[in-house]
Amino acid sequence: MAAQRTIGIDVGGTKILAGVVERDGTVLRTERRDTPVESTEAFLAGLAEVVDSLRDDSVAAVGIGIPSTIDQREGTSVFSVHVPLEGVPLRERGERYLGLPVAIDNDANAAAVAEWTIGAGRGTQHMVMLTLGTGIGGGLILGGRLYRGASGAAAELGHMVLEFDGPECRGFCTGRGHFEYFASGSAANEVADELFGPESDSRQLVAAARDGDERAVGALTQMGRKLGAGMASLVNIFDPEAIVIGGGFGDALDLLLQPAMETLRRDALPPGRDRVRILAAELGEEAGMVGAGLIAFEKLEG
Amino acid sequence: MAAQRTIGIDVGGTKILAGVVERDGTVLRTERRDTPVESTEAFLAGLAEVVDSLRDDSVAAVGIGIPSTIDQREGTSVFSVHVPLEGVPLRERGERYLGLPVAIDNDANAAAVAEWTIGAGRGTQHMVMLTLGTGIGGGLILGGRLYRGASGAAAELGHMVLEFDGPECRGFCTGRGHFEYFASGSAANEVADELFGPESDSRQLVAAARDGDERAVGALTQMGRKLGAGMASLVNIFDPEAIVIGGGFGDALDLLLQPAMETLRRDALPPGRDRVRILAAELGEEAGMVGAGLIAFEKLEG
Repeated sequence: MAAQRTIGIDVGGTKILAGVVERDGTVLRTERRDTPVESTEAFLAGLAEVVDSLRDDSVAAVGIGIPSTIDQREGTSVFSVHVPLEGVPLRERGERYLGLPVAIDNDANAAAVAEWTIGAGRGTQHMVMLTLGTGIGGGLILGGRLYRGASGAAAELGHMVLEFDGPECRGFCTGRGHFEYFASGSAANEVADELFGPESDSRQLVAAARDGDERAVGALTQMGRKLGAGMASLVNIFDPEAIVIGGGFGDALDLLLQPAMETLRRDALPPGRDRVRILAAELGEEAGMVGAGLIAFEKLEG
Repeated sequence: MAAQRTIGIDVGGTKILAGVVERDGTVLRTERRDTPVESTEAFLAGLAEVVDSLRDDSVAAVGIGIPSTIDQREGTSVFSVHVPLEGVPLRERGERYLGLPVAIDNDANAAAVAEWTIGAGRGTQHMVMLTLGTGIGGGLILGGRLYRGASGAAAELGHMVLEFDGPECRGFCTGRGHFEYFASGSAANEVADELFGPESDSRQLVAAARDGDERAVGALTQMGRKLGAGMASLVNIFDPEAIVIGGGFGDALDLLLQPAMETLRRDALPPGRDRVRILAAELGEEAGMVGAGLIAFEKLEG
């Protein structure tokens, strides 16, 4: 029997990136298209098209990573701000639409699996992944496997409380003072708006800081300190070998790292704080796709 | 061969509680004495006396729970504020002193194992333990086993950052705004001092609140809200089936619970926040001893 492969699909709010993935994480070919957001039906039809364009006899399962809290008991996404999937039994409907076993998971969980298998976190047993994007996504590799919690909704690391009774989360979450409020791409966008006007975003902020703009450097230093405090909590909780930082805003890690490490050393305890390595993600935008493909192999085991 | 038993020893800053423990958590007989704190030698000699007083041919290993961060790689306690054990290779020296296999662990880890095996958390796969005492101790049962992290120092849940750049931790920790600063017995002692004078402590605060004293009720409400925010972080991180609250100050859970649940519902995400049960610990002061005994059985396996 030929080796089995999977199709990994990373669903973003605007783009879908899909690829055929081997068990070792190798990607054979990819496909990219806009995310159909008009309706659940249109979304599922779009998924089917992507799968059909990539599929051959070696493809035995599909993994879908979505930017939502997942309830693995039901196979649903609990919230879905960018994609019309809220409460949709995506795993079951996907299997019917595609005629293949389907695994679903949170996109940051998928990225964590990919970075752990072939990226920055390979060789570790205990690894924390943070994806700094619109929010802060989280993924946990604990004892050499992905940790999902009781319902599959674990690792919402962007929603740790970092400032009790602080500002309310952007978007659907009713929480206050959550980690992602302070250290995500959206946080950087807001700072950019304040400093450089309403059309600015995190890219301009980062570019200005690289050019030595003091206000931009100061703002990123403050964000780095909050990133460090959040990472300190994670060190004290998990005593991990590594924290891997990805996501679009994660590209600014070089600017965030020094203030982050100073705060981490203050707020985290030995021996964990001396042991943990803070690493830049290596797989870039392919992490979610590769990880979704790797997670789909779970459907082919046992 | 007769069933093997262990001796579980819970080392506190002032008292040692030890007992013979069976594999199912049953305690056969116990011994209690003051903790020798003059020197490491005196401490080890005291341990040996306790073990000798309990030992018979069925005892095959000893488990020691201590109120310190543990480095399991070295078998040492990293900090040890109350007991003269800092940097001491307790596992190795204990084995030489006692002539038995010795397991060591953090006291809250031990309490978590006990509550999970025969206490409030039995039957769960994913359980978080908080012991509200001088600080806040933490223990994590993830996927049906104790999670220790890369060095054995994980689950320092009292040292999650709850208020970025907040007040400095009491004691050795250099961190700021940590969870235990706001919701531990020490926090309650400080409030009691403010409200009722310098000789007061958390017991008076709790008693006054039970008598309807509005200032005491208000103070405990505010502490409950912070307890709830910390628990919300834990729900978002772990999606656990249960959070078990123990420790001396945990006896005030009935006064803390309503404001805690209000804040938890605000700061935690579904489905975890709707699933998690907040439970009072059931084993009281025996939890650490029973858990230390259960952990010692690890030395008899494999």
